[in-house]
Amino acid sequence: MQTKVLLNDRIVEMNQATVSILDRGYQFGDGVYEVIRFYNGEFFELLPHLERFKKSCEEVGIPFHFELLTLQKDISNLVKSAGYSSGYLYTQITRGTMQRNHLYLNEKNLEPQLVAYTVKEEQRPFENMTNGIKVLLCEDIRWLRCDIKSLNLLGSVMLKNQAASLDAKEAVLHRNGYITEGSATNVFIVKNGKLLTHPANNLILNGITRQVIMALAKELHIDVIEEAFTIDEFRLADEAFTSATVSEICPIISFIENNNEFLIGNGQRGPITEKIQDAYTKKINIETKLFNPNVTRS
Amino acid sequence: MQTKVLLNDRIVEMNQATVSILDRGYQFGDGVYEVIRFYNGEFFELLPHLERFKKSCEEVGIPFHFELLTLQKDISNLVKSAGYSSGYLYTQITRGTMQRNHLYLNEKNLEPQLVAYTVKEEQRPFENMTNGIKVLLCEDIRWLRCDIKSLNLLGSVMLKNQAASLDAKEAVLHRNGYITEGSATNVFIVKNGKLLTHPANNLILNGITRQVIMALAKELHIDVIEEAFTIDEFRLADEAFTSATVSEICPIISFIENNNEFLIGNGQRGPITEKIQDAYTKKINIETKLFNPNVTRS
Repeated sequence: MQTKVLLNDRIVEMNQATVSILDRGYQFGDGVYEVIRFYNGEFFELLPHLERFKKSCEEVGIPFHFELLTLQKDISNLVKSAGYSSGYLYTQITRGTMQRNHLYLNEKNLEPQLVAYTVKEEQRPFENMTNGIKVLLCEDIRWLRCDIKSLNLLGSVMLKNQAASLDAKEAVLHRNGYITEGSATNVFIVKNGKLLTHPANNLILNGITRQVIMALAKELHIDVIEEAFTIDEFRLADEAFTSATVSEICPIISFIENNNEFLIGNGQRGPITEKIQDAYTKKINIETKLFNPNVTRS
Repeated sequence: MQTKVLLNDRIVEMNQATVSILDRGYQFGDGVYEVIRFYNGEFFELLPHLERFKKSCEEVGIPFHFELLTLQKDISNLVKSAGYSSGYLYTQITRGTMQRNHLYLNEKNLEPQLVAYTVKEEQRPFENMTNGIKVLLCEDIRWLRCDIKSLNLLGSVMLKNQAASLDAKEAVLHRNGYITEGSATNVFIVKNGKLLTHPANNLILNGITRQVIMALAKELHIDVIEEAFTIDEFRLADEAFTSATVSEICPIISFIENNNEFLIGNGQRGPITEKIQDAYTKKINIETKLFNPNVTRS
């Protein structure tokens, strides 16, 4: 079955889902996006994602004239008709189509272009969640508005593929000696029982998973310090993990630097990481009316 | 008449020129581009543009499997059939279409997507060339690989529109106290008869027009110093100008900073700027077999 794609208010098959080459998304990366996970046919943290979507549009000056309720209904219908209950919704809004020009302010008839479709994600990333991943430490080359979830992702793409070429699953980035985040994830470290993560300023994307983790840590009475930490603090962390919507909470067990691999802590998932993963699983199960698929019930 | 668009090896009308929403150009800005001016039906500085196009692809790891000679023939045909003799060719290459994933390294069948079409530009920008422009001074928020002419242009788009909202024609950017370039132009200043411009490192795009200007300055025995200059040196310059393929060489006569407007030099096009413009015009005329349209010949 073809994937159904929402193009503004039309539903088309994926092989019919095309846009003009003059869409500013195609010529300038002039747009923003969201990735929203659903489990058991139910969205997880839908509203925070939609609110951020709207905020991203505001930040780049794209008029968000989609009714949140209508959008919610439209994307829920996509999930219902997807034919699978576990996956994610990808959605983006670009500024629209016009004769190519950096300057759009004088364009009267610019109509934002919404795209949304679902992708199957059969199960949660249990293997990486349990065994952890190796990452590549490298310089953050991205722009200074990483707080906007924009389509300008070439820096992240280059860094992620550089990591992959060294058999690492993610690139962990540093700028001016401080760890910012991953190429497509936020980064936390654990030191002396406390969580540290970069503050949500212009240098990182304030991930929804990141925000959930911070709230869960509070419930678990684990201190979270939102402060930039140095590369050395990362190297010497007791535990470290990445967070993101699809890859969820993933222990970093080692990192590559100057072509050498070094362990984080003892090179295994740490107890605080596991505690937070468990709380996250519980939240998913409650919010999406699902039971822990790890546990066999009689 | 509809604009003809080259899509890899097909020619289609602009209203049929569409790409999949899964084209990585649309979802990641994962591609590079060129803008090549033609005058009198003849390309200006065609080869340097095509060579840079190829180099940009190499930098981001997009296989450039277009024969330069074939590409040259194809785009020359676009110009011939355009129905106007003065304009520019826009061309871009994206990494191709696949299921969205930052990681492309494992994709075996990724086919780069070439797009090219012409745009009419009836005459050279004589008004701005003569009377100069006002610019906005602002922080350079772009990534650290501005040497790649990539489609990740949202930073430039935001800055250019911010400038336009203050009635300025360009944004002149500074990073760590040094002027880098404009949002879509290179920047030169003149001090004590010498030209200064930011070195061609990762913080600027090494413009073809910039390179032509440097060669012309040499012929004119004007010293060019490729060194980063401070915001203060810009403020106190004798003359300043922007350079780019379509906007050519454009005097900066004033700048906005903290909502105030300040003059550069005496607020008029300076003599060295004019000298270089004249040499540039001469080069255009020779290279494109055109005579100076400013001069009425009997």
